[in-house]
Amino acid sequence: MRRTVARLADGREIIFYDRAESAAREVAADRRPLADPGDGSQMRYDAVLEEWVSMASHRQDRTHLPPADQCPLCPSVGGRRTEVPSSDYDVVVFQNRFPSFAPGPPVDVPLGPGALPEAHFASRPSVGRCEVVCFTSRHDSSFAELGEQQARLVVDTWADRTTELSRLTNVRQVFCFENRGEAIGVTLNHPHGQIYAYPFITPRTRRMLAAAGAHRDRTGGNLFADTLRMEQADGSRVVTRGAHWTAFVPFAARWPVELHLYPNRQVPDLAALTDDERDDLARVYLDLLQRLDRLYDSPLPYIAAWHQSPVRADGTSDESLASLAYLHLQLFSIQRAPGKLKYLAGSESAMGVFVNDVVPEAVAARLRELR
Amino acid sequence: MRRTVARLADGREIIFYDRAESAAREVAADRRPLADPGDGSQMRYDAVLEEWVSMASHRQDRTHLPPADQCPLCPSVGGRRTEVPSSDYDVVVFQNRFPSFAPGPPVDVPLGPGALPEAHFASRPSVGRCEVVCFTSRHDSSFAELGEQQARLVVDTWADRTTELSRLTNVRQVFCFENRGEAIGVTLNHPHGQIYAYPFITPRTRRMLAAAGAHRDRTGGNLFADTLRMEQADGSRVVTRGAHWTAFVPFAARWPVELHLYPNRQVPDLAALTDDERDDLARVYLDLLQRLDRLYDSPLPYIAAWHQSPVRADGTSDESLASLAYLHLQLFSIQRAPGKLKYLAGSESAMGVFVNDVVPEAVAARLRELR
Repeated sequence: MRRTVARLADGREIIFYDRAESAAREVAADRRPLADPGDGSQMRYDAVLEEWVSMASHRQDRTHLPPADQCPLCPSVGGRRTEVPSSDYDVVVFQNRFPSFAPGPPVDVPLGPGALPEAHFASRPSVGRCEVVCFTSRHDSSFAELGEQQARLVVDTWADRTTELSRLTNVRQVFCFENRGEAIGVTLNHPHGQIYAYPFITPRTRRMLAAAGAHRDRTGGNLFADTLRMEQADGSRVVTRGAHWTAFVPFAARWPVELHLYPNRQVPDLAALTDDERDDLARVYLDLLQRLDRLYDSPLPYIAAWHQSPVRADGTSDESLASLAYLHLQLFSIQRAPGKLKYLAGSESAMGVFVNDVVPEAVAARLRELR
Repeated sequence: MRRTVARLADGREIIFYDRAESAAREVAADRRPLADPGDGSQMRYDAVLEEWVSMASHRQDRTHLPPADQCPLCPSVGGRRTEVPSSDYDVVVFQNRFPSFAPGPPVDVPLGPGALPEAHFASRPSVGRCEVVCFTSRHDSSFAELGEQQARLVVDTWADRTTELSRLTNVRQVFCFENRGEAIGVTLNHPHGQIYAYPFITPRTRRMLAAAGAHRDRTGGNLFADTLRMEQADGSRVVTRGAHWTAFVPFAARWPVELHLYPNRQVPDLAALTDDERDDLARVYLDLLQRLDRLYDSPLPYIAAWHQSPVRADGTSDESLASLAYLHLQLFSIQRAPGKLKYLAGSESAMGVFVNDVVPEAVAARLRELR
């Protein structure tokens, strides 16, 4: 894999990831007249739920479902200038033009009871970094259609971005994900994912690590490893197993389609995976995505979310909990039947209580058949 | 207000709430050939997030957007038999035919680290109760159009249901809410809300009460009362104030439109409101809903969610925290602009990190103007 770094017209970084180590990557100068992206957005602290919320009002004007011949994620060909100043690419990453979190000087982002000097109305610059990852230069494709070699290149890209972004000031957690399908609000159809490098540990991660801490104190075991082992032993919700990975529908799935994909060995993040584990991941992940697209008569809208260990866990309690983190993918869909979506209404959105209309074992059995 | 209780053909309870104390309510026998609703659903414990998830597979077949002349929530007239065996009603409540939580024998529903005898794969019958509240017999109406007298009757109905449901075995929290608009998944257009009587304290409530406990330990004050006081003092996000109620856009709003409505006096739930407070609530709530419908060129899809104190807080630590609860309404919408919805994608759905494209002070200013 060869990495080439360049800058876009407004100073944003763009990084090409090429399969061929040898070939030099030609990058044209980006001469588009881009407005300054502005000085970023603000995070505010919700004292009632003890969580940070990012306020990104400049995102209201972001590009919304342009036609294919105006896609900003395609290569620049025939005189048209896109976000990618090159006539082709394998995988390319660049800083989001409409970021929810953007680089800035070091910011102190406390979290939790008593951690804030101001009890109410505390805010901070919304620091961190947001990136776009183009999975392929082919506009009318999808991750499921990439092929193993290309999928492996994406895995290597995610791993490299995790390493790079973990080094940045202000970054406490790196989140690689893909939103797929207009039904979940995708505004660009070109096959792509995103990376959010957050300046705090996310609410879900905090909850998972707190549960893992309590589980360790109670049983001595690792919550995630024990869950994986018990799902493997039970088998009724396992969808597929590779040499290094296991995919299952979780026992208490919240979504009508939900898969968790764990490496059989505990690692903190994608960067810690071996070559063999990465190869197997490319195979198993493509297999899962292809099954999902066979579930109904149309491509499945989904969210693919990589849960990784926090970085820079300065405090001792953080550090001890972070050592319990276990890389895994959460892959889920709001499509509960052909033409029917699961909506997050009052119970889910206001109370956090999920009602799932689909039995996990039934989804697992169906997905096992769809090979 | 006069209350009349009857039974539907399959044994479900139906309760008429009539404005006139004097008039006897005529209820016809419900002779529809209704199938037995089955023995309810299951809740499963998610050990990784320490939350219960309800599995309600029978809900997959629930009635989905029937035409107006087949609406099951209209009165039974002209030989057509609906869920309401009467030719008219003021407000009527009945048990949901497709409940996520249903009555059953006493069930032990532990929660939290170490509280469960089984560390993994714990399940329980999904006990509790789900009700439908028809706000008016007029199909083509909305809550915003009810008028103060009718809105006050709904408030009294919510209060009475809170009292009644709080008495039931297995019930730990009563949640009155309205999902409005097809954009958030409403399957019946007749103006109605729902009540979930949960067998546990919901995740959001647990988090709010934990934050309130930490706030009390740190400052001696009540988190909700202090938040209300500071929003009133700041004023930039206050939308309207009645004699007994204050509505504001929260400082760290998660949704493009979000209002919190607090009584100026700390009460645990709707049942604890005085007559004057209920009258003022009817006025202020109608005013808010009318403003929301003027925000864009079409009626606003919204979720209206009443946060009430848990009931039956047996444990000492629960009891001490429950005393901090402060009734309030969370009223929010996913509509971020005309024709544009806010989707909960990767960051919100997988990580719990909200990115709001709209500045709270701007929404508050706009809503203040829309009287």
